[in-house]
Amino acid sequence: MQIELIATGDELLNGTIADTNGAFLCERLAALGLPARRGATVRDRREDIVLALRTAAARADVVVVSGGLGPTSDDVTLECAAEAAGVELTTDEPTAAAIRARLGRRGIACTPNNLRQARVPAGAKVYPNRFGTAPLVELALGSARLYFLPGVPREFRGLAEEIVLPALGRLAAGAPVRRVRLLRCYGAAESHLDHALAGLEAAHPGIELGYRTTLPENHVRLVAVGAAGEPASAVEARLSAAVAEARRRIGVACFSDDGRGLPALLGELLVARGATVALAESLTGGLACGLLTDPPGASRYARMSLVAYVDEVKRDVLGVPGELLARHGAVSEPVARAMAERARALARADFGLSCTGLAGPEGDASGQPVGTVFTALAAASGSRAERHAFGGDRDRVRAFSAHATLDALRRDLLEAAG
Amino acid sequence: MQIELIATGDELLNGTIADTNGAFLCERLAALGLPARRGATVRDRREDIVLALRTAAARADVVVVSGGLGPTSDDVTLECAAEAAGVELTTDEPTAAAIRARLGRRGIACTPNNLRQARVPAGAKVYPNRFGTAPLVELALGSARLYFLPGVPREFRGLAEEIVLPALGRLAAGAPVRRVRLLRCYGAAESHLDHALAGLEAAHPGIELGYRTTLPENHVRLVAVGAAGEPASAVEARLSAAVAEARRRIGVACFSDDGRGLPALLGELLVARGATVALAESLTGGLACGLLTDPPGASRYARMSLVAYVDEVKRDVLGVPGELLARHGAVSEPVARAMAERARALARADFGLSCTGLAGPEGDASGQPVGTVFTALAAASGSRAERHAFGGDRDRVRAFSAHATLDALRRDLLEAAG
Repeated sequence: MQIELIATGDELLNGTIADTNGAFLCERLAALGLPARRGATVRDRREDIVLALRTAAARADVVVVSGGLGPTSDDVTLECAAEAAGVELTTDEPTAAAIRARLGRRGIACTPNNLRQARVPAGAKVYPNRFGTAPLVELALGSARLYFLPGVPREFRGLAEEIVLPALGRLAAGAPVRRVRLLRCYGAAESHLDHALAGLEAAHPGIELGYRTTLPENHVRLVAVGAAGEPASAVEARLSAAVAEARRRIGVACFSDDGRGLPALLGELLVARGATVALAESLTGGLACGLLTDPPGASRYARMSLVAYVDEVKRDVLGVPGELLARHGAVSEPVARAMAERARALARADFGLSCTGLAGPEGDASGQPVGTVFTALAAASGSRAERHAFGGDRDRVRAFSAHATLDALRRDLLEAAG
Repeated sequence: MQIELIATGDELLNGTIADTNGAFLCERLAALGLPARRGATVRDRREDIVLALRTAAARADVVVVSGGLGPTSDDVTLECAAEAAGVELTTDEPTAAAIRARLGRRGIACTPNNLRQARVPAGAKVYPNRFGTAPLVELALGSARLYFLPGVPREFRGLAEEIVLPALGRLAAGAPVRRVRLLRCYGAAESHLDHALAGLEAAHPGIELGYRTTLPENHVRLVAVGAAGEPASAVEARLSAAVAEARRRIGVACFSDDGRGLPALLGELLVARGATVALAESLTGGLACGLLTDPPGASRYARMSLVAYVDEVKRDVLGVPGELLARHGAVSEPVARAMAERARALARADFGLSCTGLAGPEGDASGQPVGTVFTALAAASGSRAERHAFGGDRDRVRAFSAHATLDALRRDLLEAAG
């Protein structure tokens, strides 16, 4: 099955944004054993879009088109699709009704522009979009099947996962089995992972390893491709064995092999223990708590974060002794521990976590380098701190610090459990 | 001048890596006033590459091709270029000598594969590559000029900056001037921006509008293209006039026309006033403070955020009267106002901001729909709240809520100033 992708939008060709949808879809298609054959990026110009649609439809079985489904006058993809197919645009009444209802619930008036999003080529199949207003449209053009998705990444991904990829998976039934697992790691460099996994491919024939850094995480990708006639269950068993060995070799730095993120994993450990947590943050400015409360249901374990961005708040609101701050400075092990202990006490939580450090670009009076960060964990049994030296710019130091703050508790809970 | 890009490589279509070279080059070309017209991504298959080269050369003036210049057998781009141009491959002796010397310095034996990188289409112009071994090759194909660059990002960027972009800049001397401005907006839907700006293009000839949603923001892009012989200063003046009218029409929802983000703008307003701010958050879990403290130097105005994720913390740490929580519930205007007032008082800040609401996926006992959010602003003169009904999933409600929390203060400071 030949699959081509078309991304539309001036912004993609002006360097304003990169086409993350294409990379996402290519990865998912490859995981299905349906690697894309070609990609094209075109401007919001009618003649360019019509030509791209006709060219791709003439040689591919499936064309996935993103962008240009919005309500504004430069959103012309479906007009071009109608032109390429030689049909008229018609209003899809269920979509129009859904748009009116959606806007009405939010108290927004429905303008004629909003209803442009309900205009689709005659004969197209329309799927509702529960992530936004533009529907997903499927259209036959010659012998090709074209899918039109919104370019907004959240909507594109949601609709691709829910509708397009399952449909293509059904079309491709009978192709060689291919299964993929992603090991997500924090706190181990890519070169260390590579070293830890040396020889794994030789020990597990038919398994391929790949590495990718998605700061602040490092990922290892294991791909199992079935031999001719090998049933899916056998391919999955081979992959699971390789995943298990890889996790043994990597150790605690690997936190997930099923796609779940650090906050979700930590949340499950806390729920399993019936434990609660409170934070005191400084340089992360709330990002550690933002991560902690990312999963649905976080209120079962997250009680508080006190972002004490200035020393006065650390002393007067959080209750860190002024004497500690004066003697050691805010970026120090004793203050990190006191912050975690005070957060735990104030919020009456089982665990207290803290983070204090220098995100830059400028340092402080202590003379410690930018990237110096202390995280601490407080429990009923006492508290302990870790010192980190993160490299990179302000954003990077903040992101690593937020992850390190939570990861200290994840590792502690795993040790306690195991 | 029409410019097209071709990226070659299976890895780009398997989701293994994203094509960062293309985004980089598009941005640099746009800055030169030479926006790329189209992009294509093809696999390492001879017939696909030859077809892509011929198609692009038939309609473009310049084609920039990346990838497939390495020493291995799947690096076939220059063989395909020779086939498309109907010429033979020949060895470029200076390149062969440079490869031998480079490998010799590093003590590596020169294999026949290494010398494949010196084989170029007859008649091509060859530029040395001081970033690696594959040379930069320039070839005429019909009336188009083709540049072949290695896909390794460091080499691609180095050669693009040193050779390709200056050459295109010289070709384009005398081309029309092109200037771009981005209006960043929060709190106005794309369809409403389109409506507000209806007729602006007609009133400002030579100005083009484009729209893009980058949740939770909406962006309007204004592009001014100069007439033949129009000096850059005149084009810039026309663009500034159109930007000023667009901002008048959009109103306070447009917060920036120079690329700066909401946190940076708010930070500048606060620094100009010498004012400080403290937050009390709930559903945003620290993300509002994370935004506020994003810009370097945020400690000049950001003092605290108390993320009171559970009611007990709202009452016992933040100091919201328990009676208010019992009577109105945590997601209510009175509690939002009390949270902002208490944050201001606890941190001794000039302004207090708060945010309380339902991020979902589940609601609370109040029966209000998911997406119901109250933000509040407290100052010396008193406090006031706003009610919001945000659509979408948990991530989206949290992101919109964090922005809305800060935007209330931005609008207030602008009103006070103007």
